[in-house]
Amino acid sequence: MSEEFAGYRGKVMQTLKKAGAKIGDVINIIKDEISYTGILIPRSEYSDDNHIVMKLENGYNIGVSITPTTKIEKVGGSIKPTFVSPSLPEQKINLPRVVIVSTGGTIASRVDYRTGGVRPALSASDLYSVVPELSEIATIDAEILLSLLSENITPKHWSKIAKAVATQIEKGATGVVVAHGTDTLAYTAAALSFAIQNLPVPVVMVGSQRSADRPSSDAATNLTGAVIGAAKAPFAEVVLAMHETASDTSIIFHRGTKVRKCHTSRRDTFESINISPLARVKDGEITTLIESYKERDPKLKTNLKPSFEEKVALIKFHPGLDPKIIEWYTDEGYKGIILEGTGLGHVGNYCFPAIRRAIEKNVILAITSQCIWGSVNLNVYDTGRDLLAMGVIPLGDTLPETALVKLMWILGSLKPKDLNEAKSFLLTNFVGEINSRSIFVESFQE
Amino acid sequence: MSEEFAGYRGKVMQTLKKAGAKIGDVINIIKDEISYTGILIPRSEYSDDNHIVMKLENGYNIGVSITPTTKIEKVGGSIKPTFVSPSLPEQKINLPRVVIVSTGGTIASRVDYRTGGVRPALSASDLYSVVPELSEIATIDAEILLSLLSENITPKHWSKIAKAVATQIEKGATGVVVAHGTDTLAYTAAALSFAIQNLPVPVVMVGSQRSADRPSSDAATNLTGAVIGAAKAPFAEVVLAMHETASDTSIIFHRGTKVRKCHTSRRDTFESINISPLARVKDGEITTLIESYKERDPKLKTNLKPSFEEKVALIKFHPGLDPKIIEWYTDEGYKGIILEGTGLGHVGNYCFPAIRRAIEKNVILAITSQCIWGSVNLNVYDTGRDLLAMGVIPLGDTLPETALVKLMWILGSLKPKDLNEAKSFLLTNFVGEINSRSIFVESFQE
Repeated sequence: MSEEFAGYRGKVMQTLKKAGAKIGDVINIIKDEISYTGILIPRSEYSDDNHIVMKLENGYNIGVSITPTTKIEKVGGSIKPTFVSPSLPEQKINLPRVVIVSTGGTIASRVDYRTGGVRPALSASDLYSVVPELSEIATIDAEILLSLLSENITPKHWSKIAKAVATQIEKGATGVVVAHGTDTLAYTAAALSFAIQNLPVPVVMVGSQRSADRPSSDAATNLTGAVIGAAKAPFAEVVLAMHETASDTSIIFHRGTKVRKCHTSRRDTFESINISPLARVKDGEITTLIESYKERDPKLKTNLKPSFEEKVALIKFHPGLDPKIIEWYTDEGYKGIILEGTGLGHVGNYCFPAIRRAIEKNVILAITSQCIWGSVNLNVYDTGRDLLAMGVIPLGDTLPETALVKLMWILGSLKPKDLNEAKSFLLTNFVGEINSRSIFVESFQE
Repeated sequence: MSEEFAGYRGKVMQTLKKAGAKIGDVINIIKDEISYTGILIPRSEYSDDNHIVMKLENGYNIGVSITPTTKIEKVGGSIKPTFVSPSLPEQKINLPRVVIVSTGGTIASRVDYRTGGVRPALSASDLYSVVPELSEIATIDAEILLSLLSENITPKHWSKIAKAVATQIEKGATGVVVAHGTDTLAYTAAALSFAIQNLPVPVVMVGSQRSADRPSSDAATNLTGAVIGAAKAPFAEVVLAMHETASDTSIIFHRGTKVRKCHTSRRDTFESINISPLARVKDGEITTLIESYKERDPKLKTNLKPSFEEKVALIKFHPGLDPKIIEWYTDEGYKGIILEGTGLGHVGNYCFPAIRRAIEKNVILAITSQCIWGSVNLNVYDTGRDLLAMGVIPLGDTLPETALVKLMWILGSLKPKDLNEAKSFLLTNFVGEINSRSIFVESFQE
């Protein structure tokens, strides 16, 4: 298939050829008296043969089905992605050195309309061209580590990112920024929180909800806030920097184990759950919002433990959940299951036999809540007491996603010598993932 | 095992016998110089033999492990659950008739400390004794349909509840209140929304976060608000009535398909997602908050379609999710899978082959977002476009839990004649579950 028509075939490709339009061209389509103008973009390999997909000026893609009366016209030539590449700005002396490690995602890329591909745009000069004010804050080094949409990031990538960040810290970075897609940004933030502890400097994860080529993009403000955090923040934790509100006025730092993507499209999509955010950047200045954080201390030596066991599952309980799914994971040799229960940490009693069987076969079962806010407590209702008695571990106010990552990390990196040690690690607060006052199990499990 | 020591055995039962204490007695335990006073309550069948469980005055249960130095003393006799049972209040004439259908849960019950069991307390006279002001609002009839903790409610129970509610409406109720545990209250609210349409009168689901025997209980205020709604509200929809804030001043009505339990313990735990709540009760008066709702109209005849297909699963995607789980559901004969994707509705590309295989085998695959707020849109990124091309159905701003219930209902009650009809039903807004402007698929799938 020609790259000029990638993904198009059959009658729709003929129609495009007739109009003299190829991918990247600006085209106008008139259908049912509605006119659409946008850039012709490639289709995926699974596409049908009667839609044309175009990117409208507002950044959205639409598909238009082609009928014999649809009119198509080429109105402009191919637009190539351009990065203004000025000579590098004059470097100030004695600025902090911030390394931006790029893993892909919206923030790290611009759409190349010619190929439809997402092109990483994070060389230092590209960055200065997009966000020239960075040169006032820090000397930037950029490392393109991965180029993935974040839904395709797996625990193996977490290990790779953790190692890359630790290496940059060893080499003397004042702070590290990790650019990452927002979809699984919070999972990776939790993973790095566990994998690289005892940090001397901050590690600031950052993403954007809208790509830099859209007028409403949050990429530049988020990136600037993240670089300020990496360069100047008083804390040395893994944090996530994104918009505090829908406006462009402030960037907020969330603790990596206590943050969650809570809206599909808003710029202030990330929220700290059950705690206050760590700090805010406004007008270039950082204000801390809580008192208990790990302080920046260049003398510390990063403790890198980057392995994750992948045989750990997250099961969201729902009415009618088939308990056989728990049996399946047990028989597949899974080592741990995080249950996302209801309310204070419950599942239907019809799941009890499968849970008991899993525990008998040495699968670690721990429970969190799909409520998201608040804390599980297995001592209030019969269901919770039954689960506790069976050996299900209540994880207090740990987020389900963080609990999954934590158990993967415990089994992969800490290699507990037995089940009891694994359980005790799960109940240990390593990096702020659990408020100790939220653990109601202590008086019960001595 | 004696009921006087239910759940206790071995050395701990001997200790209790020596102290002359049995279940229901007020006991005092001194351990490590800390004194605990509370009611001895039964243990579950899976318990160990070295903890005593007591209910403290603040309503919480704690387990205390017994060592040779622990002191136990009986300080008070058995407390039986008492309901003040006054003669029924004088009935006002011409009051609306509200039926309270009880399914169990915290709101419907008081703990019987003698048996540890949860006793439904919803005869009309019990209700008037607990909430005497109900007699000012309506004539109350009470029906104890089920007595379940809501995590044990299954789709079969939804059918039973829907039929009971429809029967009460047919018999002429001015409105129906359904008392239900909060854990899966939102799932059942969605289920009733689909199962009983074309309502002439409101159906108000209600729960409470703290039982009526605790000073901080929200049971009475929630129930009063629910009865006011059932008796007087201008809308005829399935709604959920709970505290609007942590204070006792207002009760808010959420649409049954757009509501979610968002905190494990707060009284204002339920939130309307992506829409405003329907109305508020304050000082006994109802104020509507949106303009588009189904109006109360006694001439309407309820359309009862109460069947749910149980072979429908909800899978929450996470990094490292084993795609074999999708294959397992496919091979088990599941008819539908709701994916709880990331962001705008994505899953890792390593799941694509399993998804394609499921769709080839006629499993309906639809996608929602684990962000919870916002709407899925499969047209923005490559991942979404690939999913769309494979035949995955984007459900706009439908909540994952509501999507699960809806697909169960479509397959169980509407019996679509083929896959295309099933898909078209999924994209239809039946009872406010989907904002049509959130559906970005229309121009694509004609």
